[in-house]
Amino acid sequence: MHKNRGPVYYGDYLKLKELLGAQVPLSKKFETNENPECHDETLFIIVHQVYELWFKQILHELNDIIKIFNQNYIPENSLSRVCQRLERIKKIQSLLVGQLEIMETMTPMDFLEFRDLLIPASGFQSVQFREIEIMMGLSTKDRLNVDREFFLGRLSEADRKKLETIESNPSLLKLVEEWLERLPYTQAKDFNFWSSYQQSINHILNTDEQIIKDNKANLTDREKNIQLENLNLTRETFANLFDESKHLKLVENNQRKLSQKAILNALFILLYRDESVLTLPFNIINSLIDIDENFTTWRYRHALMAQRMLGTKIGTGGSSGHVYLKRAADNNRAFVDLFNLSTFLIPRSQLPVIPTHIKEKMNFNV
Amino acid sequence: MHKNRGPVYYGDYLKLKELLGAQVPLSKKFETNENPECHDETLFIIVHQVYELWFKQILHELNDIIKIFNQNYIPENSLSRVCQRLERIKKIQSLLVGQLEIMETMTPMDFLEFRDLLIPASGFQSVQFREIEIMMGLSTKDRLNVDREFFLGRLSEADRKKLETIESNPSLLKLVEEWLERLPYTQAKDFNFWSSYQQSINHILNTDEQIIKDNKANLTDREKNIQLENLNLTRETFANLFDESKHLKLVENNQRKLSQKAILNALFILLYRDESVLTLPFNIINSLIDIDENFTTWRYRHALMAQRMLGTKIGTGGSSGHVYLKRAADNNRAFVDLFNLSTFLIPRSQLPVIPTHIKEKMNFNV
Amino acid sequence: MHKNRGPVYYGDYLKLKELLGAQVPLSKKFETNENPECHDETLFIIVHQVYELWFKQILHELNDIIKIFNQNYIPENSLSRVCQRLERIKKIQSLLVGQLEIMETMTPMDFLEFRDLLIPASGFQSVQFREIEIMMGLSTKDRLNVDREFFLGRLSEADRKKLETIESNPSLLKLVEEWLERLPYTQAKDFNFWSSYQQSINHILNTDEQIIKDNKANLTDREKNIQLENLNLTRETFANLFDESKHLKLVENNQRKLSQKAILNALFILLYRDESVLTLPFNIINSLIDIDENFTTWRYRHALMAQRMLGTKIGTGGSSGHVYLKRAADNNRAFVDLFNLSTFLIPRSQLPVIPTHIKEKMNFNV
Amino acid sequence: MHKNRGPVYYGDYLKLKELLGAQVPLSKKFETNENPECHDETLFIIVHQVYELWFKQILHELNDIIKIFNQNYIPENSLSRVCQRLERIKKIQSLLVGQLEIMETMTPMDFLEFRDLLIPASGFQSVQFREIEIMMGLSTKDRLNVDREFFLGRLSEADRKKLETIESNPSLLKLVEEWLERLPYTQAKDFNFWSSYQQSINHILNTDEQIIKDNKANLTDREKNIQLENLNLTRETFANLFDESKHLKLVENNQRKLSQKAILNALFILLYRDESVLTLPFNIINSLIDIDENFTTWRYRHALMAQRMLGTKIGTGGSSGHVYLKRAADNNRAFVDLFNLSTFLIPRSQLPVIPTHIKEKMNFNV
Repeated sequence: MHKNRGPVYYGDYLKLKELLGAQVPLSKKFETNENPECHDETLFIIVHQVYELWFKQILHELNDIIKIFNQNYIPENSLSRVCQRLERIKKIQSLLVGQLEIMETMTPMDFLEFRDLLIPASGFQSVQFREIEIMMGLSTKDRLNVDREFFLGRLSEADRKKLETIESNPSLLKLVEEWLERLPYTQAKDFNFWSSYQQSINHILNTDEQIIKDNKANLTDREKNIQLENLNLTRETFANLFDESKHLKLVENNQRKLSQKAILNALFILLYRDESVLTLPFNIINSLIDIDENFTTWRYRHALMAQRMLGTKIGTGGSSGHVYLKRAADNNRAFVDLFNLSTFLIPRSQLPVIPTHIKEKMNFNV
Repeated sequence: MHKNRGPVYYGDYLKLKELLGAQVPLSKKFETNENPECHDETLFIIVHQVYELWFKQILHELNDIIKIFNQNYIPENSLSRVCQRLERIKKIQSLLVGQLEIMETMTPMDFLEFRDLLIPASGFQSVQFREIEIMMGLSTKDRLNVDREFFLGRLSEADRKKLETIESNPSLLKLVEEWLERLPYTQAKDFNFWSSYQQSINHILNTDEQIIKDNKANLTDREKNIQLENLNLTRETFANLFDESKHLKLVENNQRKLSQKAILNALFILLYRDESVLTLPFNIINSLIDIDENFTTWRYRHALMAQRMLGTKIGTGGSSGHVYLKRAADNNRAFVDLFNLSTFLIPRSQLPVIPTHIKEKMNFNV
Repeated sequence: MHKNRGPVYYGDYLKLKELLGAQVPLSKKFETNENPECHDETLFIIVHQVYELWFKQILHELNDIIKIFNQNYIPENSLSRVCQRLERIKKIQSLLVGQLEIMETMTPMDFLEFRDLLIPASGFQSVQFREIEIMMGLSTKDRLNVDREFFLGRLSEADRKKLETIESNPSLLKLVEEWLERLPYTQAKDFNFWSSYQQSINHILNTDEQIIKDNKANLTDREKNIQLENLNLTRETFANLFDESKHLKLVENNQRKLSQKAILNALFILLYRDESVLTLPFNIINSLIDIDENFTTWRYRHALMAQRMLGTKIGTGGSSGHVYLKRAADNNRAFVDLFNLSTFLIPRSQLPVIPTHIKEKMNFNV
Repeated sequence: MHKNRGPVYYGDYLKLKELLGAQVPLSKKFETNENPECHDETLFIIVHQVYELWFKQILHELNDIIKIFNQNYIPENSLSRVCQRLERIKKIQSLLVGQLEIMETMTPMDFLEFRDLLIPASGFQSVQFREIEIMMGLSTKDRLNVDREFFLGRLSEADRKKLETIESNPSLLKLVEEWLERLPYTQAKDFNFWSSYQQSINHILNTDEQIIKDNKANLTDREKNIQLENLNLTRETFANLFDESKHLKLVENNQRKLSQKAILNALFILLYRDESVLTLPFNIINSLIDIDENFTTWRYRHALMAQRMLGTKIGTGGSSGHVYLKRAADNNRAFVDLFNLSTFLIPRSQLPVIPTHIKEKMNFNV
């Protein structure tokens, strides 16, 4: 416990002088009789500053999480801490989305009054947001072309260097992959979980095929064919999962980010989430998916807001922002492999039985 | 004021017996020792039932709004009522989005346990949601192919007939268009608002062009060219707005839904929203945009949820739902023309001056 | 429209160096090997800093609103601006409430690690929040004893002086009162709205009394008596409203804040909100009530959080915070008279008829 | 996995005919030319029906949770299920609060139009909400007088009987108490956790006393005395915790609900939450507190809404609702003992060290 060092005053502790002195609207700085200060520029500044404060907090959490994962052996009680950190990031994200509604209280016309003053500044230049993306696991090569261009071109030399350094460190995606790869339980002398699992899958898919062919759903021929095609796609997807060479090809084509082993073990965690030893790993996987999804929602809502604010006008940073933002919403996801895991799930009742000697290791008392 | 007719009991008034008796999980109905009831099917049913109750409420509001707009002369105090109704729809929508989080407490594996029982039922068969879409102004021809196919093919004969009847009535989009077209103020003997407006626009675009060419933003040649292209697109967009024949062509190609006159008058309302007489019209336009945007957000979040729940599996209705849902999110918007209005806004300081004799009509006391 | 003065960089515009340098955890400053930095202190600081940024934005809006109301004649289109400002404050408030959930991700044990370092700093010392309270209309004499004590005792001399100056300026409550008093429409040569209204009220209360006595609700004698007592209280409340001397006594006893005339006119606005000329005044009254209610909710949730964080421990500022906060939630409301207006409402069908010559003034076209 | 029994139609599955036929506004039933249907009564009905559907879902979860806890030995993976159920209840609760905003889109005047028709129906008669309260652990004797009176007097004979039966079954509070009492870890041959803990506490309180007396916070004499009094209260509170006879007296006086042993073990869980074996127990305790707090918030917001809707008028059920509701918000909490646990927390750095042989039992691998 820390010892008190003397009386603390609220305003000093929070450095309110610096904090509340950091809003300098350009429309005020360049105010003239004809062009008075724009009332809403203060809102514009404060909304962005609050975003940056939350980004700092998210980075504070991510740094600690990465520190924990960046060990060969992760102590059990550290996983609980990881969960708490991720939970906090999720709560912050839900505020980020809510904040868009505050921005939307500024009408397009009010924005027009001062937007020219800001050229070419742009939210693309938020170094902290880029840091978050990189630390989550989004690499430069994963970015859409337009994004990469802005990414490289619009930042100051110092900022670009900073991001390059960060990208050279292991990302959360990479560390989670290694952690997942270390999960035991799926292989033992007398037990190969994945071959049992493949048998169950084949059984299910064959049944599904029969259902479609028996046409219980009163499908037209055209619909029936579509569904059979879909089923074949599913077979192929499973084949891609279990065949390492096919998996590697997907990784090469940038369609998968995680190793086959990591994906399989993540799937195992989802399937047996109720076993005590998997409680925290499941929460972590689920939170990573949530966080990815929340950023996706935020980007999409952000895109709608930009479209509503600017129509098809050029953004202050020179991009037709909303089109890019919508595509980035879909593209810039680090943990998309986890997001898609449910493709491979099967009903609990058809799961392979885990041998007792393994089950014992997964619980405190069996 | 209505007179009381005798003591009322809470449970009778709300018909709780019927309401709370309407949850019949199929996994319970077909329960066996091997296949016990699935706990989460109750959630699945209740979530959908709550959706349907809110849809009924939204329809209740839309019907009243359409009744108000479906008059040649709309009494002033009715506009205030329209605003309240729209406001309520928006509040309901924000619950609809929040409800997705409750659905997400059901894990993909829990859903798998009973999903086969539901085939081929599908949310696409929600007649009420279709009614909302149609009443808002989404016509069958506006739908994506896959959507249209489901729309026509999956509904019972009775439900399809019902929707056809509704589509034959004037939609909110159509009625709002007519109402917008009736707005006075932009034309008078000595005053043609739109020709003044076009002059302002030309002035602004020419200035913008100069800014880009003077390269204040330190653009590379490539960026400069992109921006000049964008600027030309903007010129063209304005040309499309003011040239009736071009506008008609856009309508033919399904790129515009509203008439030129309606769009121009909506734009006028946005530009002069602070005049008393335009307070309510502005609120109405803004709420229509909000409502469209909220459905869009809801569809997008719904798509993410479907993807997370099913991966790339086939939905119970036989569609690979999340791909369709994401595209529908962007496509199924009735008031997209209003959404894009900000394309045509200019700064307040460059607006044409409205002659006093018109201004007088727009305020209580000038 | 403002002219661009040269390229702007995102980080410079937002003063990110100052902003992101303003987080100095005391547990880091006084870090030792035994007492390492507390991870969660950064969260504690950032949450409070974000609060302060939003408070600044709320003050920015309040200042503009007060400037508008602080005129003898308020131009019509200014009222629309007031509505937008109030709407924005409401949106910000809903974030303030949401932010409590982020604070709650810090567990009591994590807080304990650094709370002693902060003594005697306290949220009571937020000058900006005090400014908001004062500008809304909460005067020193309105505060609870404990609150007043902290209010005067814990602030630095400079901060106290600052608040005294602000309190010497007219508050929003005072200015709204004056604005309400100026509302015409209720009195004319041949028309005294309030005497007609009192007749309607008497009619309704007499009917209600009969309903209770006829015992349609199957009341026990005890219940019947309670209800009749309540009815008499209602009669008395109305008497207090219409009898100026009684009203003045309530004001003296600090049970009413607004003048009789202001309250009556606010009531009139609620009753005839659908008339065009009252659209914006109604929105303003409603938003003022919302804002008061939102601060109340925030204080109450804040109290619950404090209780959960500290139990019955002493707060860092030396108060048993949650008890005070709960009482302040109920007490510190500037616009409570508007909140209670519905006491005096009657059904639309029993409203007095407004003479045509007055009605004409209340609409654009009758 | 359940087998499909034939094609399912969305509307049939959800029993939409029954569901959407269950809204019968009395103002429609008794409609006359003079007294047309009240548009907003539909909203009033649907909002309450949605509440009842969510209540049903909450009961569905509570029943399953109680079934799990109502065993002498609770299998480990059941705890994970409990957590998921509780998590879902929390999500539903956040919708319940949001729903109040929809109700608030109905103005007091619109409610007045049909409220007399509803007499004496009242939300107090929601049997399902009473069931939730009872199952959570709120007994008849815990209720405020006014609440008890309504509770017994206003329900139909059948509904009252039903609730009495439910109250005769073990509540969640009771079952959680038993579960907590069974927690091992705090006592061993060579280890008495609680005596070590008491030593730490004494040390801390003595230090705190010195801090106050040394007056680092520049307290006035009056403030200093208040704080010392508070400190003595804290000492007494701890005494009450550790002295069984004192604790029993508090239980008798209805100031504590849980047994001493249960409270101590809950405290232990909070203190050592990062140990693997306590992860789920901690989540459960935390969720129970959340759920209690959420109902409290909902009741408080509900009270504010009632006040705003009715002012000081009599509610349809004959109560001056908002006063009761505010008091019930504070009173009707089942898990208040858990809520107040932080009173007894101490900083991690001053926690007693747990012997290795106990620690080993609390983790998978030490």
